[in-house]
Amino acid sequence: MLELSASSLVIVGVIAGVAVVALLIAVVLRGQVLAADEGSVRMREIAQAIQEGASAYLNRQFRTLAIFVVVVLALLFLLPGDGGIKVGRAVAFVFGAGFSAAIGYLGMWLAVRANLRVAASAQHPGGRREGARIAFRTGGVVGMSVVGLGLLGAAGVVLIFQGDAPAVLEGFGFGAALLAMFMRVGGGIFTKAADVGADLVGKVEQGIPEDDPRNAATIADNVGDNVGDCAGMAADLFESYAVTLVASLILGKAAFGEQGIIFPLIVAAIGAVVAVLGVAITRVRGDEDALTTIYRGFYISALAGVLLAALAAFLYLPSSFGAINGVSEELANHAGDPRLIAAAAVTIGVVLAGIILWLTGYFTGTTSKPTLHVASTSQTGAATVVLSGIGVGFESAVYTAGIIAAAICGVFLLAGGSVWLSLFLVALAGCGLLTTVGVIVAMDTFGPVSDNAQGIAEMSGEVDAEGAQILTDLDAAGNTTKAITKGIAIATAVLAATALFGSYADAVATSLQDILDSGKDVAGGVVTSMLAYDIISPVTLVGVILGAATVFLFSGLAIDAVTRAAGAIVFEVRRQFRENPGIMTGEVRPEYGRVVDICTRDSLRELATPGLLAAFAPIAVGFGLGVGPLAGFLGGSIAAGVLMAVFLANAGGTWDNAKKIVEDGRYGGKGSEAHAAVVIGDTVGDPFKDTAGPAINPLIKVMNLVALLIAPAVVQLSVPADANHVLRIGIASAAAAVAFGAVIASRLRAAKVDQENEARAAVAAASPR
Amino acid sequence: MLELSASSLVIVGVIAGVAVVALLIAVVLRGQVLAADEGSVRMREIAQAIQEGASAYLNRQFRTLAIFVVVVLALLFLLPGDGGIKVGRAVAFVFGAGFSAAIGYLGMWLAVRANLRVAASAQHPGGRREGARIAFRTGGVVGMSVVGLGLLGAAGVVLIFQGDAPAVLEGFGFGAALLAMFMRVGGGIFTKAADVGADLVGKVEQGIPEDDPRNAATIADNVGDNVGDCAGMAADLFESYAVTLVASLILGKAAFGEQGIIFPLIVAAIGAVVAVLGVAITRVRGDEDALTTIYRGFYISALAGVLLAALAAFLYLPSSFGAINGVSEELANHAGDPRLIAAAAVTIGVVLAGIILWLTGYFTGTTSKPTLHVASTSQTGAATVVLSGIGVGFESAVYTAGIIAAAICGVFLLAGGSVWLSLFLVALAGCGLLTTVGVIVAMDTFGPVSDNAQGIAEMSGEVDAEGAQILTDLDAAGNTTKAITKGIAIATAVLAATALFGSYADAVATSLQDILDSGKDVAGGVVTSMLAYDIISPVTLVGVILGAATVFLFSGLAIDAVTRAAGAIVFEVRRQFRENPGIMTGEVRPEYGRVVDICTRDSLRELATPGLLAAFAPIAVGFGLGVGPLAGFLGGSIAAGVLMAVFLANAGGTWDNAKKIVEDGRYGGKGSEAHAAVVIGDTVGDPFKDTAGPAINPLIKVMNLVALLIAPAVVQLSVPADANHVLRIGIASAAAAVAFGAVIASRLRAAKVDQENEARAAVAAASPR
Repeated sequence: MLELSASSLVIVGVIAGVAVVALLIAVVLRGQVLAADEGSVRMREIAQAIQEGASAYLNRQFRTLAIFVVVVLALLFLLPGDGGIKVGRAVAFVFGAGFSAAIGYLGMWLAVRANLRVAASAQHPGGRREGARIAFRTGGVVGMSVVGLGLLGAAGVVLIFQGDAPAVLEGFGFGAALLAMFMRVGGGIFTKAADVGADLVGKVEQGIPEDDPRNAATIADNVGDNVGDCAGMAADLFESYAVTLVASLILGKAAFGEQGIIFPLIVAAIGAVVAVLGVAITRVRGDEDALTTIYRGFYISALAGVLLAALAAFLYLPSSFGAINGVSEELANHAGDPRLIAAAAVTIGVVLAGIILWLTGYFTGTTSKPTLHVASTSQTGAATVVLSGIGVGFESAVYTAGIIAAAICGVFLLAGGSVWLSLFLVALAGCGLLTTVGVIVAMDTFGPVSDNAQGIAEMSGEVDAEGAQILTDLDAAGNTTKAITKGIAIATAVLAATALFGSYADAVATSLQDILDSGKDVAGGVVTSMLAYDIISPVTLVGVILGAATVFLFSGLAIDAVTRAAGAIVFEVRRQFRENPGIMTGEVRPEYGRVVDICTRDSLRELATPGLLAAFAPIAVGFGLGVGPLAGFLGGSIAAGVLMAVFLANAGGTWDNAKKIVEDGRYGGKGSEAHAAVVIGDTVGDPFKDTAGPAINPLIKVMNLVALLIAPAVVQLSVPADANHVLRIGIASAAAAVAFGAVIASRLRAAKVDQENEARAAVAAASPR
Repeated sequence: MLELSASSLVIVGVIAGVAVVALLIAVVLRGQVLAADEGSVRMREIAQAIQEGASAYLNRQFRTLAIFVVVVLALLFLLPGDGGIKVGRAVAFVFGAGFSAAIGYLGMWLAVRANLRVAASAQHPGGRREGARIAFRTGGVVGMSVVGLGLLGAAGVVLIFQGDAPAVLEGFGFGAALLAMFMRVGGGIFTKAADVGADLVGKVEQGIPEDDPRNAATIADNVGDNVGDCAGMAADLFESYAVTLVASLILGKAAFGEQGIIFPLIVAAIGAVVAVLGVAITRVRGDEDALTTIYRGFYISALAGVLLAALAAFLYLPSSFGAINGVSEELANHAGDPRLIAAAAVTIGVVLAGIILWLTGYFTGTTSKPTLHVASTSQTGAATVVLSGIGVGFESAVYTAGIIAAAICGVFLLAGGSVWLSLFLVALAGCGLLTTVGVIVAMDTFGPVSDNAQGIAEMSGEVDAEGAQILTDLDAAGNTTKAITKGIAIATAVLAATALFGSYADAVATSLQDILDSGKDVAGGVVTSMLAYDIISPVTLVGVILGAATVFLFSGLAIDAVTRAAGAIVFEVRRQFRENPGIMTGEVRPEYGRVVDICTRDSLRELATPGLLAAFAPIAVGFGLGVGPLAGFLGGSIAAGVLMAVFLANAGGTWDNAKKIVEDGRYGGKGSEAHAAVVIGDTVGDPFKDTAGPAINPLIKVMNLVALLIAPAVVQLSVPADANHVLRIGIASAAAAVAFGAVIASRLRAAKVDQENEARAAVAAASPR
């Protein structure tokens, strides 16, 4: 084991201290949020229903996921490797998964309490400022917890395992990413099934407003905001944070030894400091709207991140590569100044966050040309709204991908063309981007809290016009912050995945060297090609195609799951209206709980298929086709993943705001044909932007981590002349069978749901209205 | 120059003779089609209007494209290389472009005459059989012409340039692909702008049937079928044919010398023979529907293709690789039997065509589960129809891509892991797939001819109920054949592009060797990485991302163009209804010509942007980032291209047939809310399946050919130590400026169109109804 020097251990100790301070600040902020006024009895009743639904869902979800965690844990022990590291990695896996779940639960727990307090605050004098403060503080708690737990986990592993920490941390990152992916998919299906179902019957068929208490799906819709947007996003960003750190540490160790492990941790600790600053300075001044406040907080803290990171680079790093203790041979003679290069890489990451923030705002904002264009197509009907939104989505995906690509090229030039150095710098740029993650999580949590607050106010009927306007404004700001943070989340995912890609290549190279060192004979022929990373090799190209295909299939499955679950909810809400006419007149309260139950059941049932696909597809490709095609698979999934994720998020975002534009009175306003057209667009966009799109972030990282973990096993089963090809093909076939079987099972279930819906429709048609 | 042996020249002469015979048969079939009854005066008047519109459009399109051809011709002379080959390549380029245009024009010319004759035949006894015969014979003429001209061009170049033929044929393939891409984009925008515009006002707003003569956009809609589906598809498949042959000859020459050039030509000639057989045996027996007939024709001719190709392999090729005259060193000791391997590769291609035929039918057919599912979601509104169709599209894209990937893996195993051999075998599989192209073109042309026939019958009002039913059945069969041939077209594109990818790597290797042979110093550092095909290099990964992004941007631009042009047509048709109430009562004939003019103007205006993007993006990436990232770019574009093309085609196909299911009476039938929902789905699908989707086929080949052509120049400007990097960056910047400038210009134009539409809407709102 590479033991770290005493001075390094001290630094890591200080970093762990920073993490603990961040967590303590989170506790203080939490107290501030909970101290606020809880509003009227009616409001508390509604909030109570949301709390119960959300807790019940997450608890059942965690029980389901525990099974996955146990299975994966067993599989982890089957992988080759040193026993001590395996145990450490398994423990770290459980911690990563646990932290991810805890962050998600905390986000939900606090959000369902803050929503009520924001709604209540709108009634008080100075409600605008107070509401924004509570909502943003809630986000602050989650943000500080993400940063604190991520940093504490990484620092703790480094303190215990020292030089072996990177290998152990693979488990931590994998646990975090796997849980986050499931929470994104499950929560995403829940929230959008409820939302789409509520809109289809409420807004479209019955013409009653959103969040109307007569709609049986409203509570489920509000529950969904919390389990999807809050819990899912918090787990997702925690996972980005953990995985980026893991990749940085692996690559840092390979390139620079000890200092390569410590420096990324320092940058991450700076992120924690910056998060504290960001949360502290984000206060509404005068009459400004919440968005202005949030943007100011983001840009100031981003600037602080750059300055502190540069300072750290100049204090901690030497002035030449040769002076780094443990530098690799290849880099020892590199001509650049490591301090400048490291500071520049971090800066590129932060600047990337800023540009994407602006770009996403441009494509989805209510006052920007693309959204106005989509709104204007409502004059020619729903089809043109859908088409123009898809056009905007495609275009914005290309620009976002282009900006990320430019950042990677910039890092590559910084590295002077050294592939290994550039991979480490990509990871550092990712760390730079994540110095803003505290503020980003706070921005994102702001959205569902405000959305829920408006829902509670609407349902209680106890908030006056002025208060309602305050909450509507907060909700609109929340819509924009939610859209923007999605852009940043995918950028972190791409940088993390690219860096992991490098870690994967490192793992392959190490395993190959082990075989060569052992003096074993090496196979030729087909096997040689299995090792080729060359994209011109047809099987590597096949890998690229399959990687991109997995992203398409995953997106399709997620969207389908929402469509199906939403269909079930439509039939349930219609049934309640039909069987109980008192609901429409407001005399009888609808059975909210039944809709929450359907959402819970369906989303847990549907979450397995995309999850199994993500975990087993890389295993099938790796063992079946080799490490070269698996690299192609990862590359294809990153490329298709970033484009698809941004396409889905921004198409959804622009439809959402195009609807707002029409609702604000353009083209006939609410109730016009143009309005009906944009409502259809918005409904199409719901699963795009809140289910399939955001789930792609953890997806590409889970697939990269699986590849990283299996790489040594694949090499051992394919490279030696006496390799066990029967076992290799057996593993590949079994993995393909699991992934494919899950898809087939999902199809069969879908056919059954179609039959049930037909039967329900027949019942509805037969019964008197 | 490598001179071919006398025996080879005799074989090529015979192949040229086969090509001439195919063309003569086309002339005979054309005579048969034209000899049929032309129907009533009213029918002829309508057909005349369609003919005039289609000719006018194609003539204007060719004038516009002539400018592009001249510019590209000039650029071709700027590339480095041997003078004689450059002149030959330029001439071949003009011929390729000319043949592509001629095939397209012929397809349109005959289709606009056949439509009338099919409509007329429905009135006669035995109309069902006679109508199908005329429609399929029309396709036969185009199919035989595609095969004949493609084979004649390739054989002619080989006879003249012999061993240098592959380099010259790059020009032929490039000309064919470039023209086909523009015809696909331009024709696709025309046909769907007219179709969407006609549906939005006619079906959705006014509730009048499709092809109602009161709709001012009907003639434009029918014109569009011919310039888009007929001319575009014919040019596209011609281009696939030419490009696959080009790639086979390049790779064949590199791997096997003379016999590697001749054998692919033999397979192509077999395709011509098979096409004759296919057209001859496709006759309606008894009361069977047209689809059964067509499927039988396809499967029999596919089987004949396999048998003949195997026979050719065993007669022409020796039994060991070492015995091949001109075999490369690497392959001389290959253990396999070239005859078996070649026959197996061709068989894989043919089997691939058969599987894709079935798979596309499964996902888009009116009786298959996925389409029934989409139709059933109409019960919950348009949003769920759109979402479920997108889900089906994503899923079917994955299976299709998976099957193509499996075919490539199969070929790779056949080659025993040799990258070069496997690339050649991919090309051979492509040739195998294309042995069915004659029948495929015939199947595809069947679609628009039947569609138009129904339109003419409807507009003339002179066809009785029985005749109308015959034409409706033919039209439904045509819809299915159109969808199926799209799947095959993309499969040919992927195989051709993968093979071209190999040709690209060959060109790079040759250029590198030239520099090394010349004894020049070679640069290191960043430049070394510019050469890396390794997908784990961050810049190569950036290439993959940018390649996939280009596909997304291209699709978005094409869809946007349709949305905009359709918007203009909606306003025009509404204006005619509003300003002339006599149109609705049937007293006054609408001004069909104005709509045709708008379609013509808009599609020619919109076609430049995606075209420039496709041609200049690879130049920017290649000169800017190097040959490695350019390879990544091509790989990314192939992977994203196949998925996107199939997604768009099959989502569109399933919506189209879901609409048919509802129109046949399910879920309330015509006029119900479910019907309104599926009409919106179908309209969204129109530009998917007929504009953006099919244009991706030529797109990925154009980009591959551009890369192939510029590869030597990129190597010369980056590899030598004294390379002119200023010039290199200058070229990259200029190319990026052209591609990006085209997109910006398109955006500015879009903003102007939005303004115009707003103004039109204001006029409409102000005028009395």
